Amino acid sequence: MRPGSGPPRYEVIGIAGLPEVRPGADLARLIVETAARQSTPLIGGDLLVVSQKVVSKMEDRIVRLADVTPSPVALAMGAGLGRDPRLVEVILRESRRIVRMDQGILITETHHGWVCANAGVDQSNMDVDSVALLPEDPDGSARALRDRIRTLAGVDVFVIIADTFGRPWREGLTNVAIGLAGLAPLRSYLGERDPAGRPLQATILAVADELAAAAEPVMGKLDRIPAAIVRGASLTSSEEGSKPLLRDPARDLFR
Amino acid sequence: MRPGSGPPRYEVIGIAGLPEVRPGADLARLIVETAARQSTPLIGGDLLVVSQKVVSKMEDRIVRLADVTPSPVALAMGAGLGRDPRLVEVILRESRRIVRMDQGILITETHHGWVCANAGVDQSNMDVDSVALLPEDPDGSARALRDRIRTLAGVDVFVIIADTFGRPWREGLTNVAIGLAGLAPLRSYLGERDPAGRPLQATILAVADELAAAAEPVMGKLDRIPAAIVRGASLTSSEEGSKPLLRDPARDLFR
Repeated sequence: MRPGSGPPRYEVIGIAGLPEVRPGADLARLIVETAARQSTPLIGGDLLVVSQKVVSKMEDRIVRLADVTPSPVALAMGAGLGRDPRLVEVILRESRRIVRMDQGILITETHHGWVCANAGVDQSNMDVDSVALLPEDPDGSARALRDRIRTLAGVDVFVIIADTFGRPWREGLTNVAIGLAGLAPLRSYLGERDPAGRPLQATILAVADELAAAAEPVMGKLDRIPAAIVRGASLTSSEEGSKPLLRDPARDLFR
Repeated sequence: MRPGSGPPRYEVIGIAGLPEVRPGADLARLIVETAARQSTPLIGGDLLVVSQKVVSKMEDRIVRLADVTPSPVALAMGAGLGRDPRLVEVILRESRRIVRMDQGILITETHHGWVCANAGVDQSNMDVDSVALLPEDPDGSARALRDRIRTLAGVDVFVIIADTFGRPWREGLTNVAIGLAGLAPLRSYLGERDPAGRPLQATILAVADELAAAAEPVMGKLDRIPAAIVRGASLTSSEEGSKPLLRDPARDLFR
């Protein structure tokens, strides 16, 4: 423990009871007001983690499958995968590359560069026959939320837009960051030395993903808790957005 | 917010100032005493996240490279990868399968079934020319820590042994669970329905990995903070250990 101070610690607080988010809603205001109502108003330096789903709803990134005409490719792929060809069509439109297609699973690289199942297109927590796409520019969405919160509440917060992605080799989804405002996504120990004097090589931590993951356990899928406050964590300010989290395909052994 | 209660929340507290852990050390006692000394004694229901490194040191899972004679295979692979053939030899001994070998990177499946770089063999935070192997049975290590803490402090805690692993497609390491005692590693929404009445399909969250990740930001690589308390998170009791986090290779599109 450092003398004169306590151990490092931080808190994660769900923002519970947000009303249903409609296209064009003032999501920042809903978050600010709901956090205040539960006696945990946002304060300067808080990290706000917001579910991709409510951002997509606010931005009207919703597609009704009834309005989608699948292309011949989507029809063939849907038949092969045992999936609704209209959904496959939407996924293909959101993708720039197919990474794997097997066992009913479609893993693609989105236009942003994220590799995930179904290009992030999601049917849960949606009206029947509607699907939600990822925000078009999640970093821009995060910055807009931060700016609007500054205007409304007079506080500077960090923002992460998060989604739950699967990963190879391990079961279960984890929350990861797909959009950032204000914080550095990576923390690097490159060039530093450990207590034995040995250079720490290639120790780069994805703190934005770790804090997105930290927020998930209080963000109920069923309880309308699409946002959480991470309070007291040590963060590095940066405007670089989420792009440093994307691995250069040339250095990726798995696509 | 649920009436009569606050929002869901939990806290993450680093256990700072642990002395250097030697083979045979009573790690549980060091943790209990250090936590008490910083005025955050362990209490029942806490989740204790412990770095693999100190568990490996306690269990003497240390190999001096000077004592290792590389096999011809390790010599050839080391030359191809530009890596110390003695280190390659140790990695191969800890592996049951090579998943990828390219660009100086060796990704293998360990005898436990984890897929990670270098079979988890780690040179950082070690004496020069020594490397640390993963614990032989991380679930057993977690149970032993839990049992010893119950004896010493009279409290029942959950335990995760965590290590920082890389992952495909995304830059940066994140902390993940490799050993568990007391908690269920996965939380499933299978068969439940979202507020629109639509069945939530395939929504299984890897809460153990998310909480391991949550602990990392307070576990300094350089500050001798190899353990953290996660206090107040909603956990499901289970004795199934970490195995449910391993994806069945037959259902894995990336090995």
